[in-house]
Amino acid sequence: MSGTEMPRLSKQNNQGGGADVHSTLARLLAEAGRDFYRRGWVLGTSGNFSAVASSEPLLLAITASGADKGALLPGDFLEIDANGEVTRGAGRPSDETRLHLAVVRLRGAGSVMHTHSVWSTLLSEAFAEKGQLCIEGFEMLKGLAGVRTHEHCESLPVIENSQDMKALARALEEALEKHPDSHGVLLRRHGLYTWGRDLSEARRHVEILEFLLEVIGRTHHANGQLATLAT
Amino acid sequence: MSGTEMPRLSKQNNQGGGADVHSTLARLLAEAGRDFYRRGWVLGTSGNFSAVASSEPLLLAITASGADKGALLPGDFLEIDANGEVTRGAGRPSDETRLHLAVVRLRGAGSVMHTHSVWSTLLSEAFAEKGQLCIEGFEMLKGLAGVRTHEHCESLPVIENSQDMKALARALEEALEKHPDSHGVLLRRHGLYTWGRDLSEARRHVEILEFLLEVIGRTHHANGQLATLAT
Amino acid sequence: MSGTEMPRLSKQNNQGGGADVHSTLARLLAEAGRDFYRRGWVLGTSGNFSAVASSEPLLLAITASGADKGALLPGDFLEIDANGEVTRGAGRPSDETRLHLAVVRLRGAGSVMHTHSVWSTLLSEAFAEKGQLCIEGFEMLKGLAGVRTHEHCESLPVIENSQDMKALARALEEALEKHPDSHGVLLRRHGLYTWGRDLSEARRHVEILEFLLEVIGRTHHANGQLATLAT
Amino acid sequence: MSGTEMPRLSKQNNQGGGADVHSTLARLLAEAGRDFYRRGWVLGTSGNFSAVASSEPLLLAITASGADKGALLPGDFLEIDANGEVTRGAGRPSDETRLHLAVVRLRGAGSVMHTHSVWSTLLSEAFAEKGQLCIEGFEMLKGLAGVRTHEHCESLPVIENSQDMKALARALEEALEKHPDSHGVLLRRHGLYTWGRDLSEARRHVEILEFLLEVIGRTHHANGQLATLAT
Repeated sequence: MSGTEMPRLSKQNNQGGGADVHSTLARLLAEAGRDFYRRGWVLGTSGNFSAVASSEPLLLAITASGADKGALLPGDFLEIDANGEVTRGAGRPSDETRLHLAVVRLRGAGSVMHTHSVWSTLLSEAFAEKGQLCIEGFEMLKGLAGVRTHEHCESLPVIENSQDMKALARALEEALEKHPDSHGVLLRRHGLYTWGRDLSEARRHVEILEFLLEVIGRTHHANGQLATLAT
Repeated sequence: MSGTEMPRLSKQNNQGGGADVHSTLARLLAEAGRDFYRRGWVLGTSGNFSAVASSEPLLLAITASGADKGALLPGDFLEIDANGEVTRGAGRPSDETRLHLAVVRLRGAGSVMHTHSVWSTLLSEAFAEKGQLCIEGFEMLKGLAGVRTHEHCESLPVIENSQDMKALARALEEALEKHPDSHGVLLRRHGLYTWGRDLSEARRHVEILEFLLEVIGRTHHANGQLATLAT
Repeated sequence: MSGTEMPRLSKQNNQGGGADVHSTLARLLAEAGRDFYRRGWVLGTSGNFSAVASSEPLLLAITASGADKGALLPGDFLEIDANGEVTRGAGRPSDETRLHLAVVRLRGAGSVMHTHSVWSTLLSEAFAEKGQLCIEGFEMLKGLAGVRTHEHCESLPVIENSQDMKALARALEEALEKHPDSHGVLLRRHGLYTWGRDLSEARRHVEILEFLLEVIGRTHHANGQLATLAT
Repeated sequence: MSGTEMPRLSKQNNQGGGADVHSTLARLLAEAGRDFYRRGWVLGTSGNFSAVASSEPLLLAITASGADKGALLPGDFLEIDANGEVTRGAGRPSDETRLHLAVVRLRGAGSVMHTHSVWSTLLSEAFAEKGQLCIEGFEMLKGLAGVRTHEHCESLPVIENSQDMKALARALEEALEKHPDSHGVLLRRHGLYTWGRDLSEARRHVEILEFLLEVIGRTHHANGQLATLAT
């Protein structure tokens, strides 16, 4: 179910196949979202998920804005095109649609996932000044696509949060270009973006990066390196 | 299912509609309660939940006193009127009924939810002297009704706990009046009250505030700013 | 289903009623055990649970030794008498049977529950020298039987662990006599014993005490008051 | 279902019995894996599990490489022989097959389980220089096979991680020989290997060691003894 296989399917049978592909992706994205919700990574209406249903023309299944992540159903996903226009389903796509499209375009991703966990929120703040967070030496890194050894150094850029979605998408694009090998990006006091060749790889990347962020976060914590965040 | 829509339903069909509305609200409140229990936010018999079934006259579905939150069923909810008198179901309403009625009256809430989590308990103590806890700069804040930017500053008042329910309701009313923009109130060493226009918004507010309290709590923790609470 | 009601049932219909009462208690104890397992409070084969099926003569449903807590089934419970002899079911009763019988005798408990959580293990060590742990000022305390206000001071005695079950039962009896108002006892680096008039009260006490131990444990943690436990 | 009973079964009925034994073990291993995943101990594609289906000749049910642990199904398990060659099922066995075979050979294990938890990752780093982690005085230790008292001292060797599987298996063998009484081995910044006479004992050992590692990890944490792991 990779991004490169999907287009062939939807070209062969543009109407039926497209609907089938969309509903399959929507079902799998909804399953992933409900699991992340159970783990506390997308509480409230936070987080959003997408997967490429066709690459030529580009069609993306993506969470509708404001969907309840704990009860996520296939019907909570829209299909949009490369301009973010809705081509299937009713509702408004996620506000962060531009960010998903940027990742698909620059990384050739087949699926993009965004989570808001406690540890990604804390660490995006702790490493904001440095601009990136480097994780090295963990066996778990081998679960990231293309990584063959725990000696790999994974650098996650941290970008400033913004409500100007155009500006935020631009900042994300710059981070992706500056860190061509990164498997994820942190948004300050906001959360994690990661992606994969296909939906199952993207989901694996969420789990691996969230795990490593918890490991890193707990050591920072133990050393009093987390600045107090309330007044 | 907002508080402003419900009355119309129950006026049209006062007997049947009222029972239907009550049983729908009871089912949804029970689902929310079981999920909060699973997360450890309403262990024991702690916590209570309500939703407005009719606003003219005011009728509220509310947890019966002493209901087991892990096995919460629609039958564990009573219907009460504006004076807290039971109008449907058997049993005694939650001891904190006055607090629910105060929030409905002063905030026009369609649903009120009260949880006892580890982090809300710890932070209600840590910020008791200051009288409030300010949370600012988190994307997650955008999930609160009416908040459009992470730059929002959410101020949660902290009030002293009391077993005098009249006095506690008065203290809550004062806090609500003094903090007209707050989406929640902390009771010292007790827990969180939050609410929403309707049940689904109230539930979202619980998740968002509990998430943010965990983030804040962990930074306090990391900095040794939690006073020892046992002797 | 309190300890004082049960005997009447089993006297009326000693054969059939006894089996029914036993199987009902076994089912409810198994449900409680599976939930505690899910929360990580009885991992491995740790923990054991009992409930009084008859008080005259005393008959107790209790976990068989070595039962897997995650897959606890009614068949994992035996019935024993006041001497710990098996009167129903096959297998050996829990090694800690004497402790259950001591609590039933001295507190008139209808159900006894024993859990091994991370926080009870840590705090039983941190407060071992002092011999007790006092918890005061939390609303959650009101969930303990007979407690009417958060101003209640709950004192949990801490006793030394031992593999001599006779000696351990004697130490538990002394602690129960010295602390007539306590709702639980901690065994050093071992876990929590609590109980209730009936099974549902005992289960509630587990949840409340485990919650409060986590709150207390986290403040100790934040203040570096937990001694390092590995070499 | 111990390693010593299985061979008899598979000799009696080599074709049918072998398939039955394999599918039973695969089902039970899949259940264990899904539970560990739920607890966050085998996120991503981390972790792998095996059980002896026959000891003469040696046949092992083992996770296929890259299986998704959250959706682990019996079909995700292969059967391999003493040389690691696949004798049943399609796919490549886990990269760490040599480590499983080493444990089976040197400990006579009927089942081997490998998890990647946050606490085992942190502590394998914290105790890497010392080369071992000693846990003593906890009642929970009694759940380890052959341990009769909480006064037992469990020594878990820590070995350096490597991508050279031959070298890693050799290091593991040395650790097993040097620590003949240990019930588990930590791989630095990687995770835990444990085992048991049969599948249910191995699963119990995972739960007990992960519990104790969390207890130990939290005290280290509280004392700022966890080195910062990110740059």
